[in-house]
Formats: sequence, C-alpha cells, structure tokens
Amino acid sequence: MTAEPSPAFQPVITAAILVIGDEILSGRTKDKNIGYIAEYLTNIGIELREVRVVPDLTDEIVSALNALRSRYTYVFTTGGIGPTHDDITADAVAAAFGVPIDYDQRAIDMLLERFPKDQLNEARMRMTRIPAGADLIANSVSKAPGFKIGNVHVMAGVPAIMQAMLDVVGPTLKTGAKILSETVQAGLREGDIGTPLAEIAKAHPDCSIGSYPFWSETGPDTNIVVRSRDPEKLALATAAVKAMVEAERSRLRH
Amino acid sequence: MTAEPSPAFQPVITAAILVIGDEILSGRTKDKNIGYIAEYLTNIGIELREVRVVPDLTDEIVSALNALRSRYTYVFTTGGIGPTHDDITADAVAAAFGVPIDYDQRAIDMLLERFPKDQLNEARMRMTRIPAGADLIANSVSKAPGFKIGNVHVMAGVPAIMQAMLDVVGPTLKTGAKILSETVQAGLREGDIGTPLAEIAKAHPDCSIGSYPFWSETGPDTNIVVRSRDPEKLALATAAVKAMVEAERSRLRH
Repeated sequence: MTAEPSPAFQPVITAAILVIGDEILSGRTKDKNIGYIAEYLTNIGIELREVRVVPDLTDEIVSALNALRSRYTYVFTTGGIGPTHDDITADAVAAAFGVPIDYDQRAIDMLLERFPKDQLNEARMRMTRIPAGADLIANSVSKAPGFKIGNVHVMAGVPAIMQAMLDVVGPTLKTGAKILSETVQAGLREGDIGTPLAEIAKAHPDCSIGSYPFWSETGPDTNIVVRSRDPEKLALATAAVKAMVEAERSRLRH
Repeated sequence: MTAEPSPAFQPVITAAILVIGDEILSGRTKDKNIGYIAEYLTNIGIELREVRVVPDLTDEIVSALNALRSRYTYVFTTGGIGPTHDDITADAVAAAFGVPIDYDQRAIDMLLERFPKDQLNEARMRMTRIPAGADLIANSVSKAPGFKIGNVHVMAGVPAIMQAMLDVVGPTLKTGAKILSETVQAGLREGDIGTPLAEIAKAHPDCSIGSYPFWSETGPDTNIVVRSRDPEKLALATAAVKAMVEAERSRLRH
C-alpha cells in the first residue's frame, strides 16, 4: 500500500492568462474570462501567477506569449480566433513558436458539421488556419476549434465558447496539490486587526494570509482568507486568526 | 485666430494598468477596475495599451512596474495599499524607483480627519508610508491616500475608492485626441461579413475596425466597431461598412 504523497511534495503547477483584444483595452467589452479561468484553475490545483492583456497587434502578442510560456507551466490565451481580419491570434502564436500555419483539414471537418460547404467562405476558412503541430480543442458551441501548441492553450474570447473549451482542456492538465482556503469574517475594520494579523502571518510562513475589506450590512468589515496546501497548517493558522479576532472584538467593546 | 490642430497632429498618450493582488489571481475577487479605468481613459483621449495582473510579491511588482513605466505615458496601479501585512505596493513602488519610503506627515494628517489619534495604530500607520518625492492622491471615501510618483499613479483596489481617486487624477492628465467610434449592428453572422470587411479595413488604414460577435434576440449577430481620431475618416469608413452590410443582407436574402 502506497501512502498518498504529502501536499508539500506535490509539484506546484503554474499558469498565466494572455487576453488578446482591443475591445478589452478600450473598455468597450468588459472581460469576464480572467475571473472565470482564475477560479477554475484554483479549483483544480493550478496556481495562476500572472495575467496580461494586449492589443490585436502581432508583435505585442508574440512578445507577451514568449515571456509567459517560458515562465509558467501553462499559458491560456483568450480572443482573436474568429473569422475577421482583426483575428490574428493563430498567426501570432505560429510566429511565437516559429512554425508555419496553414488550413487544417481537421478544423475544416469540424466547421462542416455546422456550415454547408458553400458557406465556408474565405472569412470562415480563416478559422481553420492552425499552426503546424498543434492539437485542436473542440468547440461544442459553434464548432470553430481552439488549439494547443507546446504549453499554450489558445481559446475563444466569447465567454460561453471559452468555457466550453476550458471544459475540454481541464481534464488534460497536470494538477498540483489544491490550495485549500478558510475565510474568517472579522466583523472589524481592517485597520483594527492589521497589527496582530501581521504577527500571525509571520508565525505561519507556510500559509498565505490575505485581508480583504468590504462593507457589510452593519458597516466596514474584513474577510481574512487563510490559504495553504497543507490542511493541518491551514487549520492551525485559521484557529490563530479566529482567536485573534475574538480577542480584538472583546478589546474594542471595552 | 488659431485653428484647432488637426487630430493627426495631437500626440498619442498611452497608458498601462498594473493590478496587484493574489485575490484576483485566485479568482476569489473578480476584478472590476480594469474595465472601469479602460473606459475612463478612452473617454478622455488616453489609449490603454497593456494590462498586467501580478501577485503580492515585491519582485513581481517591481519588475512589471519598471517594464510598464518605461514604455507608456502613464501607469495606473490598483491594490495593495491597505493596512495589512499583505499590502506591499508602496514599498515595491519605492523599490522600483530606487527611492526611500517613510511615514508621511501629509498622509497622517489625512488619516487624522477620520481616526482619533489613539486609533492610528501600527496597521493604520502603514497606510501613511509614502515613497520620497511622491504627490498624494486624495481619498474622499476612507481618507488613506494613493500617490503619484513619476508617471505612476498608485490607487486603491476597492472599486469605490479607486474610482474616487481616479476622479482626482483624471483632470491632471495630459490627454490626446479622443478616439471616436461608431458601431454598426450587422444583423448577420461574423463569418458572413468577414471577407468584405477585411477589404474595407485595408482601404481605410487610418481607422481601426473591430468585429464582435454576440447573440441577439433573433440569433447570432455582429457589432462592427469603427474607431479613428479623425471624424471625417471615421464617417467614410462607417459609410463603407453600412453599405457592405446592406449589400450582404440583400445578397443573403436571395
């Protein structure tokens, strides 16, 4: 019988998101993909370390993609794989990897499931251009696929399609120990607990402790979030936070 | 009488946003600041060119900030200027600029407008640490200020506070010719218009033409957004898009 490896010995799997699109930078479209992918990755034990948003310009995409793919286990891109002239992601990814790009019969077959052959015009055929050596990512919503090349997953920008693609990609990813978290609602202002909280953070170096102020029904309040890969260390730090909050509440009542 | 300078001769003012915070990368908090700042800048004639999201780690903040501030007219940061141990933005910004950081009497005076002196504990005093040479950005919501150093504006992460700070910062910024835009709702699928739209984009190089698919009440639809600093060129390209859409609609009806 083999024991489950301790969370401390499981590898840390990291990721970055590259959002591609002028419409996000102009503010015309409000991004919904970053938060969705971030939560998805956290839930399967992948640590999102960086996000970048760049315009529809080849040089910008190539340079951001090369910086991110050399640094993290996985990169997820969103946007720029549609049928119009401003959809340049596939070409930019091919350029970043230094591989050719061409019409891909597998992608054409996928589009033929939705469009009769006489509707596969030049614009729609643009969506079948795939960098050499890439695997396709199925699109159950509108058929035009994303693709995976190296450690980079290229997905659509439309949230419903991106989410369908992420459901395809998710089960293929290596995952690390899931980061566990506990939230303590303090019922106090952040400034009331900041000093003792810093001491707890110092005493529990294997936990990351975040403090997030918000307005509750009764006034200013703070959520303290304790995170760790190790359930025992998480429990110890959380107990310390709860005891501190109780003590501060009682102190401030007097 | 001096003629208004042509938009083509007004300088292009660029910007980047640096979002600082583990809570955004974990997906626990969904960012609302990127879209808000993007729209704000577009409306006053500043072109947002890049966004990065980094964790609460000094090295990551310093390296992203130095990359962005050397490249764009302005950088706007959000997050990490509160009273707790995980609020390290001010120190990281000081490190990026290579200047010392210390308690700032102007910031202390601002906090004293809200807190009696005996409540200015170590945690709250943390919010008065300001890099040497920085100007403060007033915070009408909760008093603890942001600051401006060089071309970098350091703002809070809580949206209501960030927005109040941006209202203070906005009127101090250099602005360029505002990018004007026209939206044409095609009533057609993106793939139906992609080919002729690419020709229009090529014929109107001073306009940027984006195509954004969505689902309307009657099925798949596309918004075509034409953008330019020059109102005449914008009008010409928009007219070409409208004529093309009419022609394609009529063609597809037959």
